[in-house]
Amino acid sequence: MTEFRKDPVRNQWVVIDDLRPFEPTAEPAWPPDLPGRDPDCPFCPGAEHRTPGELLRYNVIPKEDGEWDVRVFPNRLPLLRVETELKKAGIGMYDWMSGVGADEIIVDSPDHRDQPDRISINRMEQVFWACHDRMQDLKRDTRLKYTLITKAVGAGAGGTLVHPHTRLLATPFVPAMVEEELWAAERYYQLKERCVLCDMVSQETASGTRIVAAGDDAVVLCPYASRHPFEMWVLPVRHASHFELSGKRVHIGLAEMTVQAFRRLVTVLGPVPFVFSLHTSPLQEAELEWFHWHWELVPVLSFAGGPARGAGLFRNPVPPEEAAAMLREPGV
Amino acid sequence: MTEFRKDPVRNQWVVIDDLRPFEPTAEPAWPPDLPGRDPDCPFCPGAEHRTPGELLRYNVIPKEDGEWDVRVFPNRLPLLRVETELKKAGIGMYDWMSGVGADEIIVDSPDHRDQPDRISINRMEQVFWACHDRMQDLKRDTRLKYTLITKAVGAGAGGTLVHPHTRLLATPFVPAMVEEELWAAERYYQLKERCVLCDMVSQETASGTRIVAAGDDAVVLCPYASRHPFEMWVLPVRHASHFELSGKRVHIGLAEMTVQAFRRLVTVLGPVPFVFSLHTSPLQEAELEWFHWHWELVPVLSFAGGPARGAGLFRNPVPPEEAAAMLREPGV
Repeated sequence: MTEFRKDPVRNQWVVIDDLRPFEPTAEPAWPPDLPGRDPDCPFCPGAEHRTPGELLRYNVIPKEDGEWDVRVFPNRLPLLRVETELKKAGIGMYDWMSGVGADEIIVDSPDHRDQPDRISINRMEQVFWACHDRMQDLKRDTRLKYTLITKAVGAGAGGTLVHPHTRLLATPFVPAMVEEELWAAERYYQLKERCVLCDMVSQETASGTRIVAAGDDAVVLCPYASRHPFEMWVLPVRHASHFELSGKRVHIGLAEMTVQAFRRLVTVLGPVPFVFSLHTSPLQEAELEWFHWHWELVPVLSFAGGPARGAGLFRNPVPPEEAAAMLREPGV
Repeated sequence: MTEFRKDPVRNQWVVIDDLRPFEPTAEPAWPPDLPGRDPDCPFCPGAEHRTPGELLRYNVIPKEDGEWDVRVFPNRLPLLRVETELKKAGIGMYDWMSGVGADEIIVDSPDHRDQPDRISINRMEQVFWACHDRMQDLKRDTRLKYTLITKAVGAGAGGTLVHPHTRLLATPFVPAMVEEELWAAERYYQLKERCVLCDMVSQETASGTRIVAAGDDAVVLCPYASRHPFEMWVLPVRHASHFELSGKRVHIGLAEMTVQAFRRLVTVLGPVPFVFSLHTSPLQEAELEWFHWHWELVPVLSFAGGPARGAGLFRNPVPPEEAAAMLREPGV
């Protein structure tokens, strides 16, 4: 079976097939026997002096040892800086902008072992609050249009240090993939006067075949036109355009579903590399009726083939219904 | 230095920086001592019976041994088939299409050793003619909207067999990346009444800083907003929207420039994996004043980071001026 399915959020056709048994190949994203604290790790407690000036620190989870749950600081060698002046120029036919923005590291946990198979709901909730608070702060700089938050786990996904962490890049423009989603979601709304992601949550919840886990406030599903095997999206059940406007109840529901997604992925596939990223509305936009924030989890399981790299034609050899069935198995 | 540059053909911002020295890491795409003929290779002369029924064969280059220069046949386990009936359906909010199309293999040369550092202009020209002829044939099937032609070299780029070959996928829709280019190129034309790629060729030829090689009929350049280090585009000098309408002079010029691009890449970086793909106008469209076919060469040198995979924000640590200067060195 080979079929084409259109991703309604990105307005792109994806090839789904089951021509060959899929054998995930990936280097393990983290080793099995990590210590709770690694004396060489710059993100472990005790090495706080090795990171640039702290932007945020939480200490809310009762603990015997250590002084923080989450820390945020600028990247040591930042790709973008808020200190840069925003300049724009035309160079003949081309458009140029100075590298203004922010490049921050969120350390998800003081515990070096808090990899995706182990991190608690409570800790995950703190990570989402850190994102929320940093976005609220960065939003005040009206030059910044977007905060791109990604957790890249494993060298195969571009991750560098093994200590659990997340990266925030704030940019003076909306990244390409989110721009496409906003564009397609707005067209969908013009036609139907409904949010495409609300429709997705309601159709998927009703059918259940692509649902991995469902809570009262958030769900995890394998999207109908998944570009990658075992791709999962975590979405709030109720419409919300801006992640940084979400409240406690949604944060808890999101943390519960994210921990489910992480654990189920590792149980089914092992410690594979993945990218987990926030797709939300532009910082300076008012609330949008047509866009609904969500987190996308993309496992990095095999090399993208020529058609995907060369022209954006993705082929997924694991139909998302099969991926979802494996991921939601009761034992998982 | 970090700056943002907008790709005018895709309408996307790219991050260009030189914060760290770039060290390309890639498994070699082919081994050093290949035999001219490998008895186990299904694409070598003598193994013709191992491939499905031939769609095309050329025998134009004078030779002592062997009976062909280029062969084309359907993929042994085709992802898409022309025999499939085109069906379209709505599944609730989703759009579905049957997997109609074509999946063909073009064997670039009878010689197993004809890797990118070695293939001749004459042979490369025959490959382009094979693409041209297959496109002309497939175009008659009006269900097919696009032919996606990619040469993926090396396992890191999704290549499977080492014998020099190219893959053609015909699809009943335009692949995502080309759709974006067509959209942006049309907007550019509406504003300026000029083709964006013609403007690019003329601005780049005048400045010379990003030119790798230039002939009378085609040029190789590193695009201003290259998403990948050492990315190169090969373009015809004169406007042409449809690759399958090009004639002998352009084919020769294109083959000369492609061989230059391949050899210079290998001389500078070694036998690195890459994807070389044709971006052209949709098969069933009349000639377009705003789109200009070109081939894109994307080396696969390091893992894409989280922001690229998660949201389409590409970071290129080698400014294209520097890449072009290295690639056009006289000794290269």
